[in-house]
Amino acid sequence: MDLRPIIAVRRDRGIHSAEDLTQLAVAAATGSAPDYQLAAWLMAAFLNPLTERETADLTLAMANSGQRLDLAPLPKPWVDKHSTGGVGDKTTLVVLPILAACGLSMVKMSGRGLGKTGGTIDKLHAIPGFRTDLSPTELLSQAQKIGLAIAGQSPDLAPADGTLYALRDVTETTGSLPLIVSSILSKKLAAGAETVVLDVKWGRGAFMATREDARALARSLRDVGQRCGLRVEAILSSMDEPLGAAVGNALEVTEALDVLGGSTDGPRERALALATEVAALALVASGKFGTEPEARDAVAHAITSGQAHDRAMAWFAAQGAELPLLLPIAPTRTTLRADQAGWIRDFDAEIVADALLDLGGGRRTKSDAIDPRVGFVRAVSVGDRVAVGDPLVEIHAATEAQIAPAEASLRRAIKLSPEPVSRPPLWDRSF
Amino acid sequence: MDLRPIIAVRRDRGIHSAEDLTQLAVAAATGSAPDYQLAAWLMAAFLNPLTERETADLTLAMANSGQRLDLAPLPKPWVDKHSTGGVGDKTTLVVLPILAACGLSMVKMSGRGLGKTGGTIDKLHAIPGFRTDLSPTELLSQAQKIGLAIAGQSPDLAPADGTLYALRDVTETTGSLPLIVSSILSKKLAAGAETVVLDVKWGRGAFMATREDARALARSLRDVGQRCGLRVEAILSSMDEPLGAAVGNALEVTEALDVLGGSTDGPRERALALATEVAALALVASGKFGTEPEARDAVAHAITSGQAHDRAMAWFAAQGAELPLLLPIAPTRTTLRADQAGWIRDFDAEIVADALLDLGGGRRTKSDAIDPRVGFVRAVSVGDRVAVGDPLVEIHAATEAQIAPAEASLRRAIKLSPEPVSRPPLWDRSF
Repeated sequence: MDLRPIIAVRRDRGIHSAEDLTQLAVAAATGSAPDYQLAAWLMAAFLNPLTERETADLTLAMANSGQRLDLAPLPKPWVDKHSTGGVGDKTTLVVLPILAACGLSMVKMSGRGLGKTGGTIDKLHAIPGFRTDLSPTELLSQAQKIGLAIAGQSPDLAPADGTLYALRDVTETTGSLPLIVSSILSKKLAAGAETVVLDVKWGRGAFMATREDARALARSLRDVGQRCGLRVEAILSSMDEPLGAAVGNALEVTEALDVLGGSTDGPRERALALATEVAALALVASGKFGTEPEARDAVAHAITSGQAHDRAMAWFAAQGAELPLLLPIAPTRTTLRADQAGWIRDFDAEIVADALLDLGGGRRTKSDAIDPRVGFVRAVSVGDRVAVGDPLVEIHAATEAQIAPAEASLRRAIKLSPEPVSRPPLWDRSF
Repeated sequence: MDLRPIIAVRRDRGIHSAEDLTQLAVAAATGSAPDYQLAAWLMAAFLNPLTERETADLTLAMANSGQRLDLAPLPKPWVDKHSTGGVGDKTTLVVLPILAACGLSMVKMSGRGLGKTGGTIDKLHAIPGFRTDLSPTELLSQAQKIGLAIAGQSPDLAPADGTLYALRDVTETTGSLPLIVSSILSKKLAAGAETVVLDVKWGRGAFMATREDARALARSLRDVGQRCGLRVEAILSSMDEPLGAAVGNALEVTEALDVLGGSTDGPRERALALATEVAALALVASGKFGTEPEARDAVAHAITSGQAHDRAMAWFAAQGAELPLLLPIAPTRTTLRADQAGWIRDFDAEIVADALLDLGGGRRTKSDAIDPRVGFVRAVSVGDRVAVGDPLVEIHAATEAQIAPAEASLRRAIKLSPEPVSRPPLWDRSF
């Protein structure tokens, strides 16, 4: 297929027909056009952004470029939850069991992490035996039984997005709002969702640097979603400091289970707060509850009753984990302590993410292996008061040699103030 | 090589260092970066054009990406002549023998034609036995003996341009002025020129549609050339109607020999006039003559004395043609005649070019074979007065079946006026 006419339209700030974008998606999905033509179109689309109508057409074209999951065996509503990615973001691991405990049935496709933001699939791979290669039939049958099932991105769903996403990464065209929106929504549509609840993160540890960027993304996701027949609800959450206590794959699974078990120690409180908000939003958007206070009560009950925690364990077991659950543990640990008194003024999520990559706990390039054991558990977050000698963060490392550089990084990440510091707001919903 | 940082600079309207552009040229020449990264850069460079300084740096980087021809065995001045391409443009075939007859020694690399504009190499290939694959040694030795030698584009000269030129063609990035300028000049530099005389064509049968576009190209070629140590002189010539009488490869070789033999019949007059102007410009720019009137006298003498014609025959023979020269002839001919009286108001070069492609006389795609025999010989040009039944143009076709469609095309190309039409100016030099 020769994409030259389509490239020329984008180059000249023209308007694509839906047919143009279907051709483009088919070419990307089947490999019938050369990568260099797709790359030229992507750069033209980066510099001459798609309109909302074009973005919706591209979304539908990519969703239709492969199989579309038929969720008919599951009871409606068909909800999905998506995070744009952050540091220490275990929200999905907390929200999904809560929603299942509240009566929703969900099938979720999730990506692997790259760079500073971790991926849910990587976190679940920290659980020995956990399988993420479930077939559509397995996903549906498990979701019918226990209310939730998850799999890695399937090459059969939205394959056009798979090709374009990989090319964007190597051609410096990742940052285009319409391309981001169509990539996210095409996968949701292909996976059968009717309602999507988005956690759009912004800040130093997120893909979107500023709240304004996140707001624009949330708006565009909502508006383009509407054109594609998807109901999109969103929450904007701050990612200047990591979310919750743990950063690192096995450590985050542990924290998710702690939170589901009712723990709100220190930074865990905010992980629960955000998960509650996202879950309540999903329960109202899906029509399961009429008001948010009712939904929040249901979430609280799912936790205090132990039902959400039980649902998580049933989920892990259904996907291959042996119970009682055993998680890999790093051989070396040390606790970094405050060398002065004061209030925590900053806990830089980006530096923490880089330090995790240094420990081998994430991927710098797609082919990197991940050490699931390593990471950090924070004892404090921004606004906390510390005395000299108080623990700030526990470092979990694979070797003794990793400790000193990790300590140095964390010392740079954590800044103290002699004056009280107010806790920054974690989320808002105005966009 | 990962070109992402270089792509990002162009995308964000930054300024490339010379080192950036050297890396890009090396990557293009050696294939060490993937085509999709080059394509993304090309589109970014199309939409965020290079500055003059960057264009000069890219030109030098591409010129240095392969061998550079050393013209030291030839007497200075080292002159080259370049046309941006047109319909019926046999100027090079006329100018080179004239310049050789006037005492210059030239080695020229020339391209093949694609689409509406023909290529000098294709015209020469109409001569049975003519070789265009001379090695650098053969080129120099022949130029030392008879003052001129020509070869097709060598993959050893400016290979970075070879890669980028091919990619531009398939990614809709051909029309960028800085990319055009660096492509032209890098090949001239690699082929050893110090002075280049350019025939920049504009109009319906040329790459540049308007005189303003041609002017901008000529200016940029002059200014970027100066930064690269190349003296660039230019003439702007109109290509709304074909140049001279013949359009078609063998027919154009015949016309070139006719013009060199002193013929100025009908449309041939303007082919000679433009060749004289280009040759005179080259002779003055190279320092061979002090003033243009002197140079024009020398050109006229080269023709009337028969020296230029002799030089052309010696050239063809040196590159493999058998003398006496035999050229392939189309089996079918017909003459289109005026069906009304009036003045020729238009003779659309673009329609003529398309009609030649229909006859098989050019390339629509790179792999097309060319029939050298076919084409048109015009009896009239814009401004001529015709009576009913006067010949307008002779059609040379491979089959009888080609005649009717060719006639129909030419009837569309030729428009008559009941009022006298003034002959449009053929060239100017103000840019």
